[in-house]
Amino acid sequence: MDDLTIARLTTRQADFNARLDQLLAWESVSDKKVNQIVDEILDAVKQQGDAAVVEYTNRFDRTVASTMSQLELSSDRLKQALDGLPTEQRAALEQAAVRIRQYHEKQKSDSWQYTEADGTMLGQKVTPMDRVGLYVPGGKAAYPSSVLMNAIPAHVAGVQEIIMVVPTPGGELNELVLAAASLAGVDRVFTIGGAQAVAALAYGTESVPKVDKIVGPGNIFVATAKRAVFGAVGIDMIAGPSEILVICDGKTDPDWVAMDLFSQAEHDEDAQPILITPDADYIEQVEASIRKLLPTMERREIIEVSLRNRAALIHVNDMDEAIEVSNRIAPEHLELSVDNPEALLPSIRHAGAIFMGRYTAEALGDYCAGPNHVLPTSGTARFSSPLGVYDFQKRSSLIMFSAEGASETGKIASVLARGESLTAHARSAEYRIKSDT
Amino acid sequence: MDDLTIARLTTRQADFNARLDQLLAWESVSDKKVNQIVDEILDAVKQQGDAAVVEYTNRFDRTVASTMSQLELSSDRLKQALDGLPTEQRAALEQAAVRIRQYHEKQKSDSWQYTEADGTMLGQKVTPMDRVGLYVPGGKAAYPSSVLMNAIPAHVAGVQEIIMVVPTPGGELNELVLAAASLAGVDRVFTIGGAQAVAALAYGTESVPKVDKIVGPGNIFVATAKRAVFGAVGIDMIAGPSEILVICDGKTDPDWVAMDLFSQAEHDEDAQPILITPDADYIEQVEASIRKLLPTMERREIIEVSLRNRAALIHVNDMDEAIEVSNRIAPEHLELSVDNPEALLPSIRHAGAIFMGRYTAEALGDYCAGPNHVLPTSGTARFSSPLGVYDFQKRSSLIMFSAEGASETGKIASVLARGESLTAHARSAEYRIKSDT
Repeated sequence: MDDLTIARLTTRQADFNARLDQLLAWESVSDKKVNQIVDEILDAVKQQGDAAVVEYTNRFDRTVASTMSQLELSSDRLKQALDGLPTEQRAALEQAAVRIRQYHEKQKSDSWQYTEADGTMLGQKVTPMDRVGLYVPGGKAAYPSSVLMNAIPAHVAGVQEIIMVVPTPGGELNELVLAAASLAGVDRVFTIGGAQAVAALAYGTESVPKVDKIVGPGNIFVATAKRAVFGAVGIDMIAGPSEILVICDGKTDPDWVAMDLFSQAEHDEDAQPILITPDADYIEQVEASIRKLLPTMERREIIEVSLRNRAALIHVNDMDEAIEVSNRIAPEHLELSVDNPEALLPSIRHAGAIFMGRYTAEALGDYCAGPNHVLPTSGTARFSSPLGVYDFQKRSSLIMFSAEGASETGKIASVLARGESLTAHARSAEYRIKSDT
Repeated sequence: MDDLTIARLTTRQADFNARLDQLLAWESVSDKKVNQIVDEILDAVKQQGDAAVVEYTNRFDRTVASTMSQLELSSDRLKQALDGLPTEQRAALEQAAVRIRQYHEKQKSDSWQYTEADGTMLGQKVTPMDRVGLYVPGGKAAYPSSVLMNAIPAHVAGVQEIIMVVPTPGGELNELVLAAASLAGVDRVFTIGGAQAVAALAYGTESVPKVDKIVGPGNIFVATAKRAVFGAVGIDMIAGPSEILVICDGKTDPDWVAMDLFSQAEHDEDAQPILITPDADYIEQVEASIRKLLPTMERREIIEVSLRNRAALIHVNDMDEAIEVSNRIAPEHLELSVDNPEALLPSIRHAGAIFMGRYTAEALGDYCAGPNHVLPTSGTARFSSPLGVYDFQKRSSLIMFSAEGASETGKIASVLARGESLTAHARSAEYRIKSDT
């Protein structure tokens, strides 16, 4: 660790923007080999259904199933996992679920309509999807919090059936994950993973029902498979490595900020922790805290690689410049570790989630604040949003013309359709024009 | 036309579901050759910027530009197109724009927040995207209505800059398209198209600013390019051929319904017009109208191929069954050509847009009813929505804990983080737990 160097940037550097771009550059590339393997698996599952899923699962997860029914868990089994949790864990999981549910209830969209003077009604009908699939990674990266964050919004939206898939490499089940599934309203659980699980959800098999949308994180095979089935089913965003950007006025305990940076760095060697401050001396303080605390961290190897390769301590002239840099980055997690974060809020244009004030550790948002922890990464907050109830609802336009309205509007449609040389459109509208007007 | 056969189905057939699936089957496949060409173009534009865009444009669109500035139209040029329109066309375009704007104003989402008893604030901040790109096909398929339908929602959302690209094969400009751009609030127009235009918008060049999202229809090269840049920028859905499903009780003038079916069939040889009715005799009447009217249609060749290959006249036992079949299809356009369409509405789960009553021709919705004509195709209405203002807004979660709230919630986060072996998360939360509680 003595040789740990963390990148330092300052907006006073002439090439600051280029350096920042270089630091942020990150691209998930599915190489040809991965694409080819995924294509084969998708095809096999599409053609052979259950048989292919069972075969791939046995091969990749070292299971010994002969039928899909051996790869499904009953809801009793989920309930048993919940009942088997230590009291403290069960209470924490339940409290988190309550807070997440309360917050997401506020995101429900309702149908709306209005009627015009001539009796014409226009509106939009909002309906939940029928059935969604939730991918949960297996093994070490199995996070019960992700089950809550993905399943609860779907449940709140009114999705009728939530199907979870979770691989169990070597047969290893994660009791916390199963307990979370029970709490979150998951209807069925299959212990399958990888591209074969994505294919089963996207196309359906004899045992696994075809879903309308697949959400949840996964490795490169899962991400590649999700990208490939996009269109046949809906998918959520393909997530990149986690990021945190802390904007601090220099007055938060530097140990707190160092630990907040660690809390993203510990996720992944590619994770990106960034501090921006107008206080040059504070950068020294936080770096000292980092050097002091790092040796005490259980996941210090991962944290260190993240700090070395992807972190930055950025000095800016003032808070306005801090916000400007933040808007360029469009971070997944933005901590405003300042006295009056509400004053900064109007200037912030792009961020997945904004953690306001010194007390609002990003980690609270990961588990139990209420808002979703599935957030846009790699600058995609410029155009996308946290996972939410709206991701499990869809809309249908409503149009009901009165005879009068159809006649008047038909005249406009007729002119425009003829301008586009679409005469069937024009004549269809013209049939509804009253001859006496 | 004497040999024109239109598929007839009835739910009484034992293999009805299989027949229906076969009829609906449609997959947009970008073959290897297309993928390879698109990848080359994307790479070239990424590396060489303007120079590559100019070169491809000259090659594919037979233009003779030497710089990008020759491929940009001024806003004066757009205004000139609007001013040059015949009075009737200009009035129709303006009336359509007003109706579309009025409807979309109702779609704007607002930021919201709430405060809990301990002073903790949670919410969601809604912001427009900074800049979006609008692809408009050139040549024959250039539709001014599409410019209105794509640009107005972005404008209503508050997008600061709307960049339109439209190829001009052989230098041919479409005055109606330029006029629509002027009306809809488009800021800049480049006369470029194909994968090179998508690349320019996605990556930015010296002249074309990088956008946050690309919307609008295009040919297979455009669709393939959009799919490839998805992630670097947002995209809308990849649209399939247009579809209409008319559910009729047998009491609408069969000429009207035949023309409504034609109005989608004339778009594209792959377009899919379907009639569902419980009245077997009505199927005969509509087919007679089809045979009578088809020879009078300007686009009869296209309509005939669509009718032959993709149309169906489906007989069902009753209206409940009609709705059930419709929900299976999840049509882009659904016409409820019945007396009391509102009675059917609660049962309809999946449709892009619902046209209610005999007067509500689908064509009205294409131009000027108000709702968007960019709708989910090929059954994707199961999980997606009409293009709307919400496609140009994004959300940031807001979390501001009081000292008290951070302490209490930190205890939950600590337990859950330790359950996931993420101890930096746990310690970050624990710093905010009050020692005296």
